[in-house]
Amino acid sequence: MTGQRADARRNYSRILAVAEAEVAQHGAAASLEQVARTAGVGSATVRRHFPTRQALLEAVFRTRIQALCERADELSRAEDSRAALLEWLHGLLAYAVGARGLADALTFEPPTDAPGQPSCGAVIEDAATPLLRRALRDGSVRPGTTFHDLLTLAVGIALATEHHTEPSVQAGRLFALAVEGLSPSPPSP
Amino acid sequence: MTGQRADARRNYSRILAVAEAEVAQHGAAASLEQVARTAGVGSATVRRHFPTRQALLEAVFRTRIQALCERADELSRAEDSRAALLEWLHGLLAYAVGARGLADALTFEPPTDAPGQPSCGAVIEDAATPLLRRALRDGSVRPGTTFHDLLTLAVGIALATEHHTEPSVQAGRLFALAVEGLSPSPPSP
Repeated sequence: MTGQRADARRNYSRILAVAEAEVAQHGAAASLEQVARTAGVGSATVRRHFPTRQALLEAVFRTRIQALCERADELSRAEDSRAALLEWLHGLLAYAVGARGLADALTFEPPTDAPGQPSCGAVIEDAATPLLRRALRDGSVRPGTTFHDLLTLAVGIALATEHHTEPSVQAGRLFALAVEGLSPSPPSP
Repeated sequence: MTGQRADARRNYSRILAVAEAEVAQHGAAASLEQVARTAGVGSATVRRHFPTRQALLEAVFRTRIQALCERADELSRAEDSRAALLEWLHGLLAYAVGARGLADALTFEPPTDAPGQPSCGAVIEDAATPLLRRALRDGSVRPGTTFHDLLTLAVGIALATEHHTEPSVQAGRLFALAVEGLSPSPPSP
């Protein structure tokens, strides 16, 4: 029994890893059959873990969202609040650039009164708010900046660079520009 | 004859204005029949001026692109190169936010060796380059900033705020944040 369960867990992890790569490449159109072929398992095995394409997409995003939340928690204890926030934002940007469907999902404002499951955006916001709050308190982020500003900027940069030849290079470049400021106001005399 | 031509010109202008509003609302899915109804002309008249939906979209974008180019030309003679560039970029952002299909069209990098018509992006780049060059020379824009950076940032902000309740307000807010810098490096001691 234990061996069978360990096998199932290994299968699940392998299928999920392959699915992440497929979704990164094809977005929401990722094929369950292709996932099965690449993972070297039968279609039935994939379907046992993920009955629908939607179930697969949710699992892919859930893993990514969870990783982002865990990273936020780790970084909230870092000494330099500016460096911690920027490192986390780079992670968010990398996810948004890599996971095509994710950026699209995050362009929608989280509904404020949605029943049931909290949206991806809301889950990330809860996790990242302590990071932003510390950076604001330390004066290392422009006053008035909201989590929604950060998320929308990262998502926008991911969407706009999606069709570029090197999305992550161009996205990183634009993000750095927005962090430092394209053209900050000259200091008042 | 002259009266007929003047009528045709008026019709064309009215149809184009209505088409711009339709495209702003429905993007590339804008309906030729709806344009005819709103403009108060027959479908045949719309089709005489714009045989296909594509012809209509191109005319809508051409007008907008031309206006952007003319504005760049005017602003290139302004005294304050920073203010001139930022004003022009706000205009670009407003167009990208207002014209749904346009932002999508501009997410593609202009092909460097495309035969025939230059792309929207290439036409805008030619017009805006003098503005950016002056601002760079005056040191009012971060060194190394390219036109492509500016275009991609504006387009990304437009795409990410498309589904928000007040796209132009949120887009303006994000743009200001990127101009001033989300979290500029602290001055070295």
